[in-house]
Amino acid sequence: MNDSVYAGLLTDRYELTMLSAALRDGTAHRRATFELFARRLPDGRRYGVVAGTGRFLELLPEFRFDDVACESLAEFLDADTLAYLRDFRFSGDVDGYAEGELYFPGSPILSVTGSFAECVVLETLALSIFNHDTAVASAAARMVSAAQGRPIMDMGSRRTHERAAVAAARAAYLAGFAATSNLEAHRRYGVPTEGTSAHAFTLLYDGPDGPDESGAFAAQVAALGAGTTLLVDTYDVTTGVANAVAAAGTGLGAVRIDSGDLGVLARQVRDQLDRLGASRTRIVVSGDLDEFAIAGLRAEPVDSYGIGTSLVTGSGAPTANMVYKLVEVDGMPVEKRSVRKESHGGRKAALRLSRSTGTITDEIVYPIGQRPQHAEPSRVLTIPLVRKGRTVIDVGADALGVARELVASGLRSLPWEGLMLSHGDPAIPTTQIPARRPPTDTQE
Amino acid sequence: MNDSVYAGLLTDRYELTMLSAALRDGTAHRRATFELFARRLPDGRRYGVVAGTGRFLELLPEFRFDDVACESLAEFLDADTLAYLRDFRFSGDVDGYAEGELYFPGSPILSVTGSFAECVVLETLALSIFNHDTAVASAAARMVSAAQGRPIMDMGSRRTHERAAVAAARAAYLAGFAATSNLEAHRRYGVPTEGTSAHAFTLLYDGPDGPDESGAFAAQVAALGAGTTLLVDTYDVTTGVANAVAAAGTGLGAVRIDSGDLGVLARQVRDQLDRLGASRTRIVVSGDLDEFAIAGLRAEPVDSYGIGTSLVTGSGAPTANMVYKLVEVDGMPVEKRSVRKESHGGRKAALRLSRSTGTITDEIVYPIGQRPQHAEPSRVLTIPLVRKGRTVIDVGADALGVARELVASGLRSLPWEGLMLSHGDPAIPTTQIPARRPPTDTQE
Repeated sequence: MNDSVYAGLLTDRYELTMLSAALRDGTAHRRATFELFARRLPDGRRYGVVAGTGRFLELLPEFRFDDVACESLAEFLDADTLAYLRDFRFSGDVDGYAEGELYFPGSPILSVTGSFAECVVLETLALSIFNHDTAVASAAARMVSAAQGRPIMDMGSRRTHERAAVAAARAAYLAGFAATSNLEAHRRYGVPTEGTSAHAFTLLYDGPDGPDESGAFAAQVAALGAGTTLLVDTYDVTTGVANAVAAAGTGLGAVRIDSGDLGVLARQVRDQLDRLGASRTRIVVSGDLDEFAIAGLRAEPVDSYGIGTSLVTGSGAPTANMVYKLVEVDGMPVEKRSVRKESHGGRKAALRLSRSTGTITDEIVYPIGQRPQHAEPSRVLTIPLVRKGRTVIDVGADALGVARELVASGLRSLPWEGLMLSHGDPAIPTTQIPARRPPTDTQE
Repeated sequence: MNDSVYAGLLTDRYELTMLSAALRDGTAHRRATFELFARRLPDGRRYGVVAGTGRFLELLPEFRFDDVACESLAEFLDADTLAYLRDFRFSGDVDGYAEGELYFPGSPILSVTGSFAECVVLETLALSIFNHDTAVASAAARMVSAAQGRPIMDMGSRRTHERAAVAAARAAYLAGFAATSNLEAHRRYGVPTEGTSAHAFTLLYDGPDGPDESGAFAAQVAALGAGTTLLVDTYDVTTGVANAVAAAGTGLGAVRIDSGDLGVLARQVRDQLDRLGASRTRIVVSGDLDEFAIAGLRAEPVDSYGIGTSLVTGSGAPTANMVYKLVEVDGMPVEKRSVRKESHGGRKAALRLSRSTGTITDEIVYPIGQRPQHAEPSRVLTIPLVRKGRTVIDVGADALGVARELVASGLRSLPWEGLMLSHGDPAIPTTQIPARRPPTDTQE
């Protein structure tokens, strides 16, 4: 599709001009650590879900620059920088949170260590992946917990960029969604797919004599079996339900309602289905639902939800606002001093404290290698992801299922107020144990 | 990057199950028209900007299914449907608005005509592209008009999916942005790039003796020349500006301020630069700006803006909420009857009326081939895009520049209230001239 073969150009120009300047005076080779973290959660959110780690690790070896890329870059880069990029392979170390971990403000989600040169150029790619995938997974997890066990399906591909849709389906599944409509997400990541029909299919059977919903339903059942889901709101819902049961019998799998007052309709349709003997036919609802609407339908006879726009747009927070900051140079912590944008210098790790019940209470961020001792049960969150350029964790087909389990156990570990949908503070506080600059020469 | 080679799988499963059912009984071969439109603009917006047409036309010939795709689809599709997809090439017609046109609620932005089979499968891809690109372009155009001629640069790649970032840069340029940070957008679409340095570059020069902003600036000027843009807010802005002019001389290209009260800082920095003799050094501001913040800085000595998050997330409207609806089957209008989701049947075109001054007054949507007559100046908006599967407009390197001109002239044609940033109705009303169903046989 004429997209660049390698990921190198998915980068901001300034990373390569910085590289050029730093190569010129040799500072490019200083040993550096960049940290990816969020200064705050989206407004009112109580936790976030880390997503994108697997995609980042997959793309890291493909962060390269081929002839086509270098030709384009030669418009503004010098020969030395181009030569550096032509041979580029990331050879450093990456530590971070496992994909699927909860995170809070200041959690060191990713820590990238190597030469300044090889770390600085990864900024845009890393942020793009984590900001997108984490935004979707964090919204999805709230929807999953609001649904209280009822399955949710991602139908949002059409509401976002065609490639972002694939990553969104992956992030939603990781966060606990049951399935996606997106076929590439299945091929690429093994996410289960579902889907039946649109209003267009029913309208296709319109003829000179008017609508023929029954004909459409009969055709769908003939092709997909009685276990299919029939969309009953193209014309009149009550007639639609009657036509659906007539076409598929009482073994009809499900009916979908995509418009109207879903709570009222769900009750009416449940009654009608039961009266018709289709008591095991499920009711699927869709149509501009978000976590609040899902929660609002808890008392209604809804069996599953289809979610589109609010999922892929992060339900009000379409980006996770993560940043990628230089925190250490040649073993020395560095930090910016701007108003309200302070970052904490030094390469870090994190652990999480919990009660004996498993409920988490605190996140502690500490200088790497200086793990503090606590009386409470604790779990270190920071794990090695890449060593000398090689990924050291599994990012294969099973990894997504493992991350999915981690999200589920993370949600179980939250204090009860952490699962509230209303605005509030982060579910647990984060404590930063500051790094100390090593004593300077004048101290000797 | 292990992405699917073809675009076919960037599709929702239900399109292919509908295809399967329709192939089975032959309705798949009925002649159909689908229309892509927005029922409403995002909350409070007064116009939208069509974007994505060029990308859709580029991907249309690549909407195919190779062996890898068919192997994945064989998990749920029958052999006949797979055989159909294996040979798939879109062979129908597409009409629509030129990329860069303004649009309003109900504007028939794209109209796809062919067999039901070949039109229904394009739903997700078409919507993904238009919903994303249009959301970005529509937000960008408001920023451009708020900036009143001062250049704006896209710095948003890091805040969105890595491939969406490329499309966003393209959409922003189309809407009037001056440049992007995204290197792939330049290689792929020729969008001009800009960019200089991040705080990390300044921090890189930290040493045992503390920060060395002057060293960082000297290195950047050595590599990129005095015309570069120096980032002056890593430590203290006043010191930063002094260090910047000391490093580059009074010929310094620009300083960038990325934090703090940008209006106050811009005035202080302008005074300081002027006092230092750097009266031609420009001031670039960035940091969580949107169209309202841009407008709020109109009175300040700001020379250009860098925009990130608010651009790529559509400034509160990350998707354009367009839908793709079946409107005609075998020459007969069809429409859904659900509450608040009515669509207007029949294949349509549109024209726009204006005063003699060029200010637009009305959008008229009419059944195709039945152009209404008006006394006022009018311009037909619907043009042929694809005929028998072949694109009949230029989508090459120049097309983006043409679309950019169209946006600029569209903004000039709006009534003054249409350019207001406050919430309001669409700038002009849309009138739908309904299609009539042909008389039925009973009338004979």
